[in-house]
Amino acid sequence: MSKKVRTAIEPTRNENYAEWYQQVIKLADLAENSDVRGCMIIKPWGYAIWENIQKHLDKMFKDTGHKNAYFPIFIPKSFFEKEAEHVEGFAKECAIVTHSRLEPDGKGGLKVAGELAEPYIVRPTSETIIGASFARWVNSYRDLPLLINQWANVVRWELRTRLFLRTAEFLWQEGHTAHATEAEAWIETKKMLDVYADFAENYLAIPVYKGEKSESERFPGAVATFCIEAMMQDKKALQAGTTHFLGQNFAKSSGIKFQNKDGEQEFAWTTSWGVSTRLIGALIMAHSDDNGMVIPPRVAPAHVAIIPIIKNAEEEDIVMDYVTNLRDELRDQIYDGHNVEVELDTRDMTFSERSWDWIKHGIPIRIELGLRDIENDTVYFGRRDLEPKDKTSLTRVDFVNSIGSILDEIQGSLYNRALNFRNENTIKIDERAEFDKFFTPQNENKPEIHGGFAQAHWCGSIECEEKIKADLKVTIRCIPENAEKEDGKCICCGTVSKQRVIFAKSY
Amino acid sequence: MSKKVRTAIEPTRNENYAEWYQQVIKLADLAENSDVRGCMIIKPWGYAIWENIQKHLDKMFKDTGHKNAYFPIFIPKSFFEKEAEHVEGFAKECAIVTHSRLEPDGKGGLKVAGELAEPYIVRPTSETIIGASFARWVNSYRDLPLLINQWANVVRWELRTRLFLRTAEFLWQEGHTAHATEAEAWIETKKMLDVYADFAENYLAIPVYKGEKSESERFPGAVATFCIEAMMQDKKALQAGTTHFLGQNFAKSSGIKFQNKDGEQEFAWTTSWGVSTRLIGALIMAHSDDNGMVIPPRVAPAHVAIIPIIKNAEEEDIVMDYVTNLRDELRDQIYDGHNVEVELDTRDMTFSERSWDWIKHGIPIRIELGLRDIENDTVYFGRRDLEPKDKTSLTRVDFVNSIGSILDEIQGSLYNRALNFRNENTIKIDERAEFDKFFTPQNENKPEIHGGFAQAHWCGSIECEEKIKADLKVTIRCIPENAEKEDGKCICCGTVSKQRVIFAKSY
Repeated sequence: MSKKVRTAIEPTRNENYAEWYQQVIKLADLAENSDVRGCMIIKPWGYAIWENIQKHLDKMFKDTGHKNAYFPIFIPKSFFEKEAEHVEGFAKECAIVTHSRLEPDGKGGLKVAGELAEPYIVRPTSETIIGASFARWVNSYRDLPLLINQWANVVRWELRTRLFLRTAEFLWQEGHTAHATEAEAWIETKKMLDVYADFAENYLAIPVYKGEKSESERFPGAVATFCIEAMMQDKKALQAGTTHFLGQNFAKSSGIKFQNKDGEQEFAWTTSWGVSTRLIGALIMAHSDDNGMVIPPRVAPAHVAIIPIIKNAEEEDIVMDYVTNLRDELRDQIYDGHNVEVELDTRDMTFSERSWDWIKHGIPIRIELGLRDIENDTVYFGRRDLEPKDKTSLTRVDFVNSIGSILDEIQGSLYNRALNFRNENTIKIDERAEFDKFFTPQNENKPEIHGGFAQAHWCGSIECEEKIKADLKVTIRCIPENAEKEDGKCICCGTVSKQRVIFAKSY
Repeated sequence: MSKKVRTAIEPTRNENYAEWYQQVIKLADLAENSDVRGCMIIKPWGYAIWENIQKHLDKMFKDTGHKNAYFPIFIPKSFFEKEAEHVEGFAKECAIVTHSRLEPDGKGGLKVAGELAEPYIVRPTSETIIGASFARWVNSYRDLPLLINQWANVVRWELRTRLFLRTAEFLWQEGHTAHATEAEAWIETKKMLDVYADFAENYLAIPVYKGEKSESERFPGAVATFCIEAMMQDKKALQAGTTHFLGQNFAKSSGIKFQNKDGEQEFAWTTSWGVSTRLIGALIMAHSDDNGMVIPPRVAPAHVAIIPIIKNAEEEDIVMDYVTNLRDELRDQIYDGHNVEVELDTRDMTFSERSWDWIKHGIPIRIELGLRDIENDTVYFGRRDLEPKDKTSLTRVDFVNSIGSILDEIQGSLYNRALNFRNENTIKIDERAEFDKFFTPQNENKPEIHGGFAQAHWCGSIECEEKIKADLKVTIRCIPENAEKEDGKCICCGTVSKQRVIFAKSY
């Protein structure tokens, strides 16, 4: 065996995937746990990724005709109770405001006081509170479609939390739309799924399967739920976004009615759709490696770190002049419609420490630049999609002129790597024995290492779905969109099936 | 008396200012009350103003070295209690989460369950929860200054609420910074006040007085609070932004310590500063008129509305071709660093109804365009800073080429109008009798109509401040920055004073 290569992250993915994930987040300064149960603090480097996600998605939403608005964080209990399945889905894990005042407890502390007449739920999602507004705003077919999005925080009192993947409070966007016809609402539901898939693949560099959820995985109150599913490096699936066709369920419970062209009252057809800070968890697990975070250029807070190497005081002015000019020249370049973002790192650390710090933070390109490079008028740089030692030189003018295409190359190579990984670990399985083996860990010390995504036939029954979940902790991730029709037998019960679905373990 | 001119807003400002304010908001579709006590719904047109405020301010914060982050919405009661003055200031009006579950109540409904071990306060402001993070993040003088901003929702359980001005939940930004020295923290406090004043004057077109608050108006826990104060059209003051020098108060209660260059442990010096959706209330009351909302171009959701006038089916193609081209041409123009935003309004309403609707929404420029204009290749338009009937024509090429300068003119004229109004209604007063008369309504049916801002001497005592407040409902809005030193006598008690302060009624 070869000597173990020292990596910046310990443990490595192979040694302990869950702990590796925590360490990547910590050493990239993305987020940390807070003193509030299950709530995270998103640190500046992590929040800047979220700002980029917001910037791009917000443009995509506006380009498809949606407008932003803002609705109350609190939902009266009575609103929440209006849709039976909905409240059933969220009642067990929610934060409830019951009081409005603190007053002295007579023992030098404070006690809660001012009990509210009706408790308020801190929104876990806003269908019911937004529905109440839609009921006021929609009167005639002329008011439709109503295409609204909200950027907000939501709270779900989850028992087991994990930074970005599952937290009690998280940031998200929730689209809510109302339409005059069932067909229009279906089109919207599918259109926004396409927007999410486009964003995941072209900005996050994460390939996804689009498809419908089985009944048991549906959003509480929805008629149909669609999702994008991505493969993480431990071969588990991560649901990265969902869109819901809500039929007239919420329109009926909230009273969203309109007068149609014939003068008759009808209930509207509604949809909702959302992605959250969970996408940052997906980014980490799709691209990062044993040296830390890897961020696709299109969502990176900064694209280039310049690390000046100054060996003595005499060199300082020369090197600093050069790197400052280089920084300014790079900032004038355009990548993906915006100026290239450059960090000039003059911290009081060795150049190697600074370089490793940027590797751990996942910056796409880092430049190490000293007197010799200046004499040759060259730029010596490393790309985050390559090995840390795999660095190269370009003449300064070539580097500056090609910065956009280098970033595009990195974006593309990350996508292709993730796509190859997913495709290599996605297989068609027709026999239950092979299916069981595929999902059974090879090493009992590494329960997370198993096969990947299995494309298998399913009869459509909840019983088979539940049996497989009970036996293997494997669920149906989605019934893929536009999958070819194919005769087969259910992997569980052997009865006839017309289509394969994707089975996987999941987050 | 002349015949009453019909206005789009009823009542007019002069008839009933408070009701006029509500009607402007309603007819401009800015916001509405929700079913949740004191919480508002910000509708798309109002939210788009907030997005523009965010966009410009966020850039100003980043240009001054600040980074965004996100902290939990909940604050453990024990954190909240750490700073005695702070908790005193917020304990009486806060939303408190005490439970985490709803369960069947046996009567077909749901009851709260899952009582929390420690209640959580929904953040009214985040000094204490952010302080806990700063205590972890700051170890050495090298970690300072720490310059953080958060865009978030906050909740203060206010009893009397009013859309935008005072709501139980509102959106804001809160800057939180930590510094190694007292001097640096002072510089930050003043710098951000300058940023706010710059933004208010150059983007919102609202002139402001900058100054320090008197002790009784200080932020709970602060050593000093500074503010920008603007005059509304009812001559009352509106506090539009505040910055706080917190000394070492919060550093001590949160434990924000660092090792200085000499290896000794010191407490950091902190600041905080914020502006909120209240700024939209300021915009409405500073600029709007009896025909509705008036929005300064630099924060307007859209700059131009094109209203095609189509008299019969034959004209339709010609007119629509022309206005579509005109829209596209205008969208290619740059104003204030961004493309001009244009709305093409083809709604099924008379052109007059559409034109008035845009007037009420406050769009800076509206174009009414029919066949005759096309034949002449002219653009007939109205500016929102002028009277509705005061419209003019320009050749199409001149209009398109001068769109940026027309918008600049509107921005400037709104600022100058607000400045003249404020200056006309701000006077130096040296006699108590004159002071009383200035602040005493001339008409008991219009208690809101009084003098304006009085620049008067004040001895500095809380007693005089409280007496004037009790007598006249007038408070010290600020002790102006850089005001000239001048000997005088306190307007209340007659003892010696070295500087005038600004007295006014306020929101």
